[in-house]
Amino acid sequence: MADRTDPGPGRGTRLDRWHSSYADRAHGMRSSEIRALFAVASRPEVVSLAGGMPYIAGLPMGTIAEATERLLRERGAQALQYGSGQGEPELRDLIIEVMDLEGVEAHPDDVVVTTGSQQALDIVTRIFINPGDVIVAEAPSYVGALGVFRSYQAHVVHAPMDSGGLIPESLDETLGALRRTGRPVKFLYTVPNFHNPAGVTLAADRRGRIVEIAARHGVLILEDNPYGLLGFDGDTQPSLQGLNPEGVVYLGSFSKTFAPGYRVGWAVAPHAVRERLVLATESSILCPSMMAQLSVTTYLNTCDWRGQIKVYRELYRERRDAALSALAEFIPEASWTVPEGGFYTWVTLPDGLDAKAMLPRAITARVAYVPGTAFYADGQGSGHLRLSYCYPPPERIREGVRRLAGVVSGERELVEIFGTGSTGPIPGIQSPAPNQR
Amino acid sequence: MADRTDPGPGRGTRLDRWHSSYADRAHGMRSSEIRALFAVASRPEVVSLAGGMPYIAGLPMGTIAEATERLLRERGAQALQYGSGQGEPELRDLIIEVMDLEGVEAHPDDVVVTTGSQQALDIVTRIFINPGDVIVAEAPSYVGALGVFRSYQAHVVHAPMDSGGLIPESLDETLGALRRTGRPVKFLYTVPNFHNPAGVTLAADRRGRIVEIAARHGVLILEDNPYGLLGFDGDTQPSLQGLNPEGVVYLGSFSKTFAPGYRVGWAVAPHAVRERLVLATESSILCPSMMAQLSVTTYLNTCDWRGQIKVYRELYRERRDAALSALAEFIPEASWTVPEGGFYTWVTLPDGLDAKAMLPRAITARVAYVPGTAFYADGQGSGHLRLSYCYPPPERIREGVRRLAGVVSGERELVEIFGTGSTGPIPGIQSPAPNQR
Repeated sequence: MADRTDPGPGRGTRLDRWHSSYADRAHGMRSSEIRALFAVASRPEVVSLAGGMPYIAGLPMGTIAEATERLLRERGAQALQYGSGQGEPELRDLIIEVMDLEGVEAHPDDVVVTTGSQQALDIVTRIFINPGDVIVAEAPSYVGALGVFRSYQAHVVHAPMDSGGLIPESLDETLGALRRTGRPVKFLYTVPNFHNPAGVTLAADRRGRIVEIAARHGVLILEDNPYGLLGFDGDTQPSLQGLNPEGVVYLGSFSKTFAPGYRVGWAVAPHAVRERLVLATESSILCPSMMAQLSVTTYLNTCDWRGQIKVYRELYRERRDAALSALAEFIPEASWTVPEGGFYTWVTLPDGLDAKAMLPRAITARVAYVPGTAFYADGQGSGHLRLSYCYPPPERIREGVRRLAGVVSGERELVEIFGTGSTGPIPGIQSPAPNQR
Repeated sequence: MADRTDPGPGRGTRLDRWHSSYADRAHGMRSSEIRALFAVASRPEVVSLAGGMPYIAGLPMGTIAEATERLLRERGAQALQYGSGQGEPELRDLIIEVMDLEGVEAHPDDVVVTTGSQQALDIVTRIFINPGDVIVAEAPSYVGALGVFRSYQAHVVHAPMDSGGLIPESLDETLGALRRTGRPVKFLYTVPNFHNPAGVTLAADRRGRIVEIAARHGVLILEDNPYGLLGFDGDTQPSLQGLNPEGVVYLGSFSKTFAPGYRVGWAVAPHAVRERLVLATESSILCPSMMAQLSVTTYLNTCDWRGQIKVYRELYRERRDAALSALAEFIPEASWTVPEGGFYTWVTLPDGLDAKAMLPRAITARVAYVPGTAFYADGQGSGHLRLSYCYPPPERIREGVRRLAGVVSGERELVEIFGTGSTGPIPGIQSPAPNQR
């Protein structure tokens, strides 16, 4: 995660002779607030509660190494060759099995294998979005999705969530209002399970309503589900896709349930949409890596992947507990969501604090997080931060939160002395909410 | 290479309820003429002279398998994790070494690792091309590049080649004429070495002139060089990039010199352009596969990759010889280029024949090729076909050309009976040319 993109002394001052040649969309591409953090957050003395790196050290690496050796010996000529743009049939069959755990209704022909689900986000946006088109996205939303939407010059309108995820009535109002202004909504982007960054899950009794509302407004749903199998109690929620396969494009990933290093994700889409996704992915990358696809296939066929997911659940639950109890102990004046799975809790700072302005002080205190503003398309979120508990061990998480508490306390003193300063009303997860403090 | 994207009986007739939602660019994405062939060309009874699949069976698979096992055991936690968007520093260092063989002037900081060089084509086009912008590309050009350009709604203007590659005077005229019409040319796309599909190489004494002409017109060069190390006599040509590093974006790939199954390619770009490419690739895929990058790194560090390239050169030279001698024996009435490296020869059919119209008959005769029209943005090329000699062994190549000869001969009889039909003037590689028949 070393930041090799730093221009280094003097290089940033070079004239860009191609500056006038860039496409309009290039001017909207900018470094994410997360990326700028990687350089500092990767220093060993910093407790990084910033990244979303899964804790893969628990994988059965010896078994994987042996199985990979066999794969290369037995099927090397296939693994190292080009494959089809849509992805390897054998892997697509297995993806159907994985998705079956969450009630996705699909045939292997409906699946497109991608270079991580990030590429799936990219090609879905590519085939649907003209500059200025409207995407409705949860507030807050995954920073990487917002980056893709921006790069295609979409206009993102946020729909509010509470502790039960997207609020059906508000979504209905938002879609209705947009319809009345004559701006077509191309799709609704949602992470229903163990939300990044909000840490909330769409309530079971809202799922049918969300699907019905989107269908009634003629709006496609883009259901992004990288964390769905990482629920701490082992339960899964029914996918939105399963409730209306013709109205949903579903995205999945092996990055959190297995490992991100292969970059294998996928999209499931209605037939005609899937055909266009294949054309878009062929144009982007020709075909996904056969070696990566067969490695994941081999893992699923030879390792106890369901057992590994259980191991992950236990591990992340322990870390979630460490994070929340440290928050309760050290920063009781803040509030936060209580995730039932996944990697993140969404922290609301005491009134008047600005997470982005506070970040340099946090880094100085050797703790890193992602400021809430990264997760909004419209500058909201300054009073929030995303706290990731996925990577550091529990005692480090506790230490990180302790350090953060010192920063928060110092900031509050400043606010008391100088007033609430320039931070406006604090948006985000609506309160009160039953599972928030 | 199975074509799993066939909609199957009846499925194509389904109504696409999202049809009105697609972006304008999606309507320009269409199945390439190559892809439609894969289903038939992969049948064992067909001699495929269509695809560009390298012959990787000669790789030291046991050594690669063992090295990969060690990699996973020793560095698994790194290999299976996320990495930086720009790519692994260790691999970028090695890429500099590889490129040094062709005179590329670059620092590891100037390199962006991509999911095959196709993704590099995609992100370069993404940051430069607004709909309607002009790209000048060789006639003919790599079909995958034309697909990317079309997906970004570029307007492609072709510049002619002869047996010495791009013709400097014609390029100068083309760029001058475009300048006078006030349409800015965003970049010149060229494959200088062992051209796909034309099989020609840009003459040494033209290289400086091409670079000078582009610079004088203020046009960036996009130099795509997947085959440069596969020259049959072992010599390499100086890269255009080395002649003007600030005026060239250079694309490289391990797909032809090692193996395509990892999907590892790269771009080298002037500093400011490189920064934007990193943002574009992060938006597309977050980061390239660490496992793929470290696998390629391991291969370069532990295997004799220079020796392997020599093996490939010998192998492809033998196949080139088989293809050309079979053409001379069986279809002397056609003409073709004499490639000094790479995978392809460009065949010009006798007057009046249409390679696309003829293809179904060829498939029936159990031989496949790619019709010339696939390699033009404007419908030219019907009198040509690309013949790939990279994959089948020499005796199969000979058999394929023999089958093709039967088809050509049958077509000529038809033309003699019914006249030249609807095939207009035949464009393409200009003749006469010294190394053409």
